[in-house]
Amino acid sequence: MKEEELNKLLKKAEKPQEDALKLHPYYEGKIETVSKVPVRDSKDFAIWYTPGVAAPCKEIQKNKDLVWEYTAKGNTIAVVSDGTRILGLGDIGPWAGLPVMEGKALIFKHLGGVDAVPICLNEKDPDKFIEIVKALEPSFGGINLEDIAKPKCFYILERLRKEMDIPVWHDDQQGTAAVTVAGMINAAKLTGRDFKKLKIVMIGTGAAGLATLRLLVLAGVDPGNIILVDRHGIVYKDREDLKEKFPYNYDLVIKTNAEQRRGGIDEAFEGMEAFIGYSSAGSVSKKHIQSMAKDPIVFACANPVPEIWPWEAKEAGAKVVATGRSDFPNQVNNSLGFPGIFRGTLDVRAKTITDEMCLAATFELAKVAEDKGLREDYIIPSMDEWEVYPREAVKVAMKAIEQKVARRIYSEDELYKMAEEKIRRARQMTKVHMDKFIKPMPEGI
Amino acid sequence: MKEEELNKLLKKAEKPQEDALKLHPYYEGKIETVSKVPVRDSKDFAIWYTPGVAAPCKEIQKNKDLVWEYTAKGNTIAVVSDGTRILGLGDIGPWAGLPVMEGKALIFKHLGGVDAVPICLNEKDPDKFIEIVKALEPSFGGINLEDIAKPKCFYILERLRKEMDIPVWHDDQQGTAAVTVAGMINAAKLTGRDFKKLKIVMIGTGAAGLATLRLLVLAGVDPGNIILVDRHGIVYKDREDLKEKFPYNYDLVIKTNAEQRRGGIDEAFEGMEAFIGYSSAGSVSKKHIQSMAKDPIVFACANPVPEIWPWEAKEAGAKVVATGRSDFPNQVNNSLGFPGIFRGTLDVRAKTITDEMCLAATFELAKVAEDKGLREDYIIPSMDEWEVYPREAVKVAMKAIEQKVARRIYSEDELYKMAEEKIRRARQMTKVHMDKFIKPMPEGI
Repeated sequence: MKEEELNKLLKKAEKPQEDALKLHPYYEGKIETVSKVPVRDSKDFAIWYTPGVAAPCKEIQKNKDLVWEYTAKGNTIAVVSDGTRILGLGDIGPWAGLPVMEGKALIFKHLGGVDAVPICLNEKDPDKFIEIVKALEPSFGGINLEDIAKPKCFYILERLRKEMDIPVWHDDQQGTAAVTVAGMINAAKLTGRDFKKLKIVMIGTGAAGLATLRLLVLAGVDPGNIILVDRHGIVYKDREDLKEKFPYNYDLVIKTNAEQRRGGIDEAFEGMEAFIGYSSAGSVSKKHIQSMAKDPIVFACANPVPEIWPWEAKEAGAKVVATGRSDFPNQVNNSLGFPGIFRGTLDVRAKTITDEMCLAATFELAKVAEDKGLREDYIIPSMDEWEVYPREAVKVAMKAIEQKVARRIYSEDELYKMAEEKIRRARQMTKVHMDKFIKPMPEGI
Repeated sequence: MKEEELNKLLKKAEKPQEDALKLHPYYEGKIETVSKVPVRDSKDFAIWYTPGVAAPCKEIQKNKDLVWEYTAKGNTIAVVSDGTRILGLGDIGPWAGLPVMEGKALIFKHLGGVDAVPICLNEKDPDKFIEIVKALEPSFGGINLEDIAKPKCFYILERLRKEMDIPVWHDDQQGTAAVTVAGMINAAKLTGRDFKKLKIVMIGTGAAGLATLRLLVLAGVDPGNIILVDRHGIVYKDREDLKEKFPYNYDLVIKTNAEQRRGGIDEAFEGMEAFIGYSSAGSVSKKHIQSMAKDPIVFACANPVPEIWPWEAKEAGAKVVATGRSDFPNQVNNSLGFPGIFRGTLDVRAKTITDEMCLAATFELAKVAEDKGLREDYIIPSMDEWEVYPREAVKVAMKAIEQKVARRIYSEDELYKMAEEKIRRARQMTKVHMDKFIKPMPEGI
């Protein structure tokens, strides 16, 4: 690629940040509240507030489950972070993390019809953090954890899933994994490989990388064929630091690398068929791609700058390239997962989101793209193909019913209709607000 | 009053509860979220979410104050309860309290243009409750405490006001007091009395009663002319249980009852000019009203059933009667206060809500009614007279600027325009949603 073109691409890659800096103060937040009930005049407040409201309160007191019927709990989740690992920016604090949580809440509503409340907690101690999130339970139908440093994120997720009566999800782990695995299923198919036997080199052992490893194995990939690389090199069974480095994932990581390969990144890539990176900008070179098997699959998901630029990977022989970016084909983006997954979870009031529910979303996400015809530049749908979300929701909800974690039972048709209607309504709402209540974008954006 | 008429009135008084029981499951919650920013297609998420959002995050990390510019914090508050004293229902728990907090959030938006998030915390220990609310600070521009049992509500408010950098308000104390005192100012005027010399008998020493006492005194009423009655009778300086009964208000209550009157309710009423009740249904009789000075003022604010029904009070000679109910004239209702008070507080990003800001709202609320002409059945505006809210907001904001607790400075005209526009927009939003997104009320409601 010519330098001029490269500069243009890099410039383009910076535009969203420039725009964001202008637009965040221009709009002062990304979501707001609006009435869900009629207010004909102030007399109606006698129904919604005192004295009328006492009646539903008393009913809930008698039967706590009625809170799901009488309030917005069933469609409302909290997006909770402590600000300790915001995007790739590290521990920038809960105030600085708020724009991300607001963005997530916006996407939850627009793509999934889910009401989400951004909650940035000024509390870094994991045990205190857990107590706070548990105390939030009455108001919410689910918890989406976000951008929490590891290893405490594993501990927090594990405890909250066990100790709360509503689903708890850590999107950086489970959401990322769901979407990555969906893409990999299709990439294997497109390159004529058996997904379950795929030889994968993975770089990065943060929340995203480890959760992806876990879900790959749950989806059927032989862990022995996976080679994991952290900053100390290839992970192999006898490496002495593994118990300390992977306190929450030790049993899983020692199942990788059946051949007990040793070395660094260079050795890890040799002969592998697929690469998944959740590491850092530029950590992979053309040489690495060239050392892989023929027609390799490259998922360079470091954000915002990938492990290797797509054009470089292509030049080095990659057959399919995916990144986390919206300005290249095959965007592996969490936003393809969580809105649909929570839609389905809430529609049946599931008590938890099981691994199988997560996998159901993964397979359906892959299938949406497959149904439309896979291509090298289309192994995963884009966020604008909004049938993704009701389709995922249905599969997630059906699995919850099958696994008996659902509080409400519906047929597949009913579920589709419900999800589709809620998401259509949410999208329509954004449109109406753009017409009536939101200032137009300033020029040039 | 004839029995038939009475039954009709009592029947009517039950209707809001009947309607509420039908409508709460029909609408499943009272507020929802909606986008505050344009979403032309999913590419815009590159601005609102990753990768663009990293830019405002980094700026906030450098300068924490920018969170007010770059997020919805500046217009978003939390309505927080532990469910220990929901309405007059007692400790019914945080799940059963949620319908009330949602109703409050609805009113905050519709009348004040304030985005409010209902948060019912499953935590009864006051110190832990305080820690949780403090941890919520990054996401919110203010805290509205609600329906927390006494005496811990005094302790919680005091500590949170001291320890948080955003305004903390306990509406059952401060909001109730603001509106009650506004009504009393006008009732005194209408009956030709000097407000500051008013002889007032007060029954009820819960959060509302004690806060009203406090604000009356701050507004200039001579505490010596106030007689306070709790369940043990009249409060007088030498009563031995006062320190124990009023740990947070001892210094105040011993200033009441200069004449050191003793006895029970009967003795308390004799010769007094005004009555304020925040006690319980039916605790006052016609005989009590008859023992008061000529043309007495009766504020029977127990909810939903007042200390004495308005028609009884009138028959016993009351000149002005107010209640907490919307089905009689002169409704002393918190909803006349908090939306405007928070509107003004947020518009200047005040660090706290001082007593003087609260009083500024009180005086302005009284003035709105006075400007329109006081009558026996009109000593306080109704919620439908929505100029109340921007007018209060301006006075609250101006006072915050004067007292140097405001983070932003505006002129009175600017403040009015800002508040008016935000409230108009919120009301319009409810209307548009009723047209497009909210099912119509079922018949008969």
